[in-house]
Amino acid sequence: MEQISKANQEALQRMLRADPVLVDVVPAAQAIPALGKNMILHAGPPIEWPRMCGPMQGAICGIAVFENWAPDLQTAEKMAAGGEFDFQPNHHFGAVGPMTGLTTLSQPVMVVENRAFGNRAYCTINEGLGKVMRFGGNDAEVLARLGWLRSTLGPAMGRALRELGGIPLKALAARGLTMGDEMHQRNVGCSGLTLRALAGALARTSDDREALAEALDFIGGNDQFFLNIAMAMGKAIMDPVRDIEYATVVTAMSRNGTDFGIRVSGTGDDWFVAPVEMPEGLYFPGFTAADANPDMGDSTIVETIGLGGFAMGASPAVAGFVGAGAASTAADFTRNMAEITIGENPEWTIPGMDYRGVPSGIDIRLVVKTGIAPTINTGIAHKEPGIGQVGAGVVRAPMACFESALVAFAERVGVA
Amino acid sequence: MEQISKANQEALQRMLRADPVLVDVVPAAQAIPALGKNMILHAGPPIEWPRMCGPMQGAICGIAVFENWAPDLQTAEKMAAGGEFDFQPNHHFGAVGPMTGLTTLSQPVMVVENRAFGNRAYCTINEGLGKVMRFGGNDAEVLARLGWLRSTLGPAMGRALRELGGIPLKALAARGLTMGDEMHQRNVGCSGLTLRALAGALARTSDDREALAEALDFIGGNDQFFLNIAMAMGKAIMDPVRDIEYATVVTAMSRNGTDFGIRVSGTGDDWFVAPVEMPEGLYFPGFTAADANPDMGDSTIVETIGLGGFAMGASPAVAGFVGAGAASTAADFTRNMAEITIGENPEWTIPGMDYRGVPSGIDIRLVVKTGIAPTINTGIAHKEPGIGQVGAGVVRAPMACFESALVAFAERVGVA
Repeated sequence: MEQISKANQEALQRMLRADPVLVDVVPAAQAIPALGKNMILHAGPPIEWPRMCGPMQGAICGIAVFENWAPDLQTAEKMAAGGEFDFQPNHHFGAVGPMTGLTTLSQPVMVVENRAFGNRAYCTINEGLGKVMRFGGNDAEVLARLGWLRSTLGPAMGRALRELGGIPLKALAARGLTMGDEMHQRNVGCSGLTLRALAGALARTSDDREALAEALDFIGGNDQFFLNIAMAMGKAIMDPVRDIEYATVVTAMSRNGTDFGIRVSGTGDDWFVAPVEMPEGLYFPGFTAADANPDMGDSTIVETIGLGGFAMGASPAVAGFVGAGAASTAADFTRNMAEITIGENPEWTIPGMDYRGVPSGIDIRLVVKTGIAPTINTGIAHKEPGIGQVGAGVVRAPMACFESALVAFAERVGVA
Repeated sequence: MEQISKANQEALQRMLRADPVLVDVVPAAQAIPALGKNMILHAGPPIEWPRMCGPMQGAICGIAVFENWAPDLQTAEKMAAGGEFDFQPNHHFGAVGPMTGLTTLSQPVMVVENRAFGNRAYCTINEGLGKVMRFGGNDAEVLARLGWLRSTLGPAMGRALRELGGIPLKALAARGLTMGDEMHQRNVGCSGLTLRALAGALARTSDDREALAEALDFIGGNDQFFLNIAMAMGKAIMDPVRDIEYATVVTAMSRNGTDFGIRVSGTGDDWFVAPVEMPEGLYFPGFTAADANPDMGDSTIVETIGLGGFAMGASPAVAGFVGAGAASTAADFTRNMAEITIGENPEWTIPGMDYRGVPSGIDIRLVVKTGIAPTINTGIAHKEPGIGQVGAGVVRAPMACFESALVAFAERVGVA
């Protein structure tokens, strides 16, 4: 038990010592050399085509057309069913992706370097709201936007970030918490801070005025622009926490729309999976729970670092958006999550809770003992491919993941 | 009494119906044709040179050099003492200015149009933090920055705003309240939202890439950039509330560093003044209360419209900055201000207070009856000219202003 406490303290210290900096945007194949033709990284734990949900299948058909691996969606679907694509989780390649979370070789990825440990993590650029690939969209409009991200915004952001020498994210996220962001379903503060940091450098490194104006408008028009940065930050923070012997701290939570999976520091790279749950939330006009896809995406990495549902107290405005009850009760979620975490983050504090730090380091023992599953703030995708986001809500990580992780941990340390 | 209630409801309705839009930036002499050579508009109620505080005298010497009315600060001071300048309050010309608040003919002013009533209000561009004219700074660095605002940023913002057709401020301020801004001592959210709205248009209308980059960096680097916009918005909202017979609603609160003055709807353009108070607050390292100048500036127009100290509940993070006590008690200030206001603003709500509207329409009768003076969040200037900001704090409007206003009102309506 003392070995476990010590290991968990080491895990927490690695989280708190992290120094994540957004340093670059590069093509995914440059960031991840293993990423080859017909290879598709997706959100969540491993899954094969037949078990994938509608939006993920739809997005896969779209990305195959985007990468010129298939001439049209129908052919792409046949190729996918025929085993012509190599599906792998983002998490196995230092990457994360929101919702369907597809990463393929030509897409630009943002690079977050954890300067305290030297590791890097990657995430694609947020596409904005509406009909987008991360929610299963795959039509010409969706692919055209991905093309513009690849040809214009990605290279422009890369130039600007290299000019700046990077944007330190720890302090930026700290400010975001004072601006009502929990950095999962609400990123309006951090998105503005990011534009403020980037805009001058974007102008200095752009020759094409109209392309520059489009880039500034795109970033300025997207309240969730920072989400994908927060995710890469989360991955960069948690990767050095992996593989600490005896540590029971969760290093990743992730969903592919079919399964929810977690990884735990003391149990190596194993995934502990369970069927993913349905979010409870609020639906956009014209949609109901009957339209909803089960929970999906790697974005739960932000809860893994104490943000999202864990930082609900910083974000009374998000409580209503995700249907979590009265805004004034948002802090209850944060207090609840403190029951299953091993500490607080003294640099990420919540003013409205008198600067209490966000609860950090999910301990699978505490989750199982208390019966309190991690709270996740999430977007809700339509269950059919090609439609997009239909709402936002709150979902719990399935308790079975934590139970099976604890059993495996106990076996591993010889107390089973 | 029923006449008063009816008049105050009309006052409140005019406040709530306001539709303030940031539409342009133009030289002050274009916005205010009466503004001629040697004429200096200042913050607060009328005051002559001998009674002005140190920072205001310092700023006046600086602006006279800036406008080429004097070759140096010493000459400017002699001219001022010799009666060569025409000093007038900003408020008499549709303008407002922070701290010393000087407005002269060649400075660029932001133009806020209240589209519901057709009136316009003006405020100079925020100079940033540190050594700046609004806090009494007047050296070469301060004048160079004012020159750059006049030659570069002002014209660039004007072009961008005309291209955009303006930025509607009511919705922007509403978002700011969900981002921890009270829009007096905290504007980090709204400043980001403003840059997000402007950046693309700035790029589209700029030929000089380096000047554009400087403009984007300047706006992006200034957490208080929105303050001056909020002030012009406040003036644009309150001017149509003036001169409603029988209305006891405050239409302006303002300080010149010596006197605090208020104007009331039912008593025309009269100022009711009292000696200004000292803020209680927190000082930057190296400064103490002994360095502080008494309260100063037209920025109290934001409290007049329900923001600043009245919206403290939206801004737990500002409570610590201004030394107002525990962050979790910020809402108490807002509840307190509800005691002296005639209603709430249903479009400017505070998520953490379950979307209660900000207290709006200060009633001089309620102030005198309850003994509760308006709470103001304010910056603190050094009392000597040329030094700048030394802290931030909370100050109360002097009760004597409200008492004398009530006496005058009573005489006017014949109940004295």
